[in-house]
Amino acid sequence: MTRWPLPPPMQQALAQARAAAALGEAPVGAVVVKDGAVIATGHNRTRTDSDPTAHAELVAIREAARVLGSERLTGCELYVTLEPCPMCAGAIAHARIARLHYGAADPKGGAVDHGARVFDHPQCLHRPEVVSGLGEGEAGELLRTFFQERRS
Amino acid sequence: MTRWPLPPPMQQALAQARAAAALGEAPVGAVVVKDGAVIATGHNRTRTDSDPTAHAELVAIREAARVLGSERLTGCELYVTLEPCPMCAGAIAHARIARLHYGAADPKGGAVDHGARVFDHPQCLHRPEVVSGLGEGEAGELLRTFFQERRS
Repeated sequence: MTRWPLPPPMQQALAQARAAAALGEAPVGAVVVKDGAVIATGHNRTRTDSDPTAHAELVAIREAARVLGSERLTGCELYVTLEPCPMCAGAIAHARIARLHYGAADPKGGAVDHGARVFDHPQCLHRPEVVSGLGEGEAGELLRTFFQERRS
Repeated sequence: MTRWPLPPPMQQALAQARAAAALGEAPVGAVVVKDGAVIATGHNRTRTDSDPTAHAELVAIREAARVLGSERLTGCELYVTLEPCPMCAGAIAHARIARLHYGAADPKGGAVDHGARVFDHPQCLHRPEVVSGLGEGEAGELLRTFFQERRS
């Protein structure tokens, strides 16, 4: 059997998630792509940096904005292994991300297709195109393993 | 007539908002208070820093977390001149801010008492006590003046 290969940006996001787990951080990774090239990567580092805002998406978005010299990431795509929380969904809107690909759904903490559904309110200034499920198996397995090991 | 004096932390948040306007940034300011002392301040600097996440609240929260050496701002209060957006409300929850004081309501962009109402979903892990209206006159006037001047 040949498995459909994940697109390289989601593979890189999963590698970022594994790097987070190696640091004892919840395994979530993200990359920002512009014109087909990865311009920024990030993973959860809230404990490492003592920064409650250092989720994978915010780390990658801030880095991409620094690289482009602009607060707007117009035309960029974000690949992240887990459904973004309200903070990260808000940042995605502010950054004008064109398309969001997320892996595993997060009914407990997600705010795209669950909970606050940040993009679904008329007040939301920018709605990215949203594609879910890409790499969800691998992304979910990383999270389950991480939290099982911490409980045992 | 004697006007009731605003509590000093909100006066400082308003001073931060004026500092933002002087830089051409939307005039919103924030301070973090712990045990009665201001431990961090911030204002909007998204253009100055080319950082879409650099709202007043995130700047102040990140600074406070750095000062305390912890991703949790347990027992801290946040004073901000404008109702927080979804990104900032999410960060307030992640940081475990005990009490949020905001000045002007923001029916267009706010996500505490409008729009996504981030704290009102069962998925929200931490809900701060919310006090609104403190300094709303001054905060709203700063914003109106700023946007009127940009339009003219």
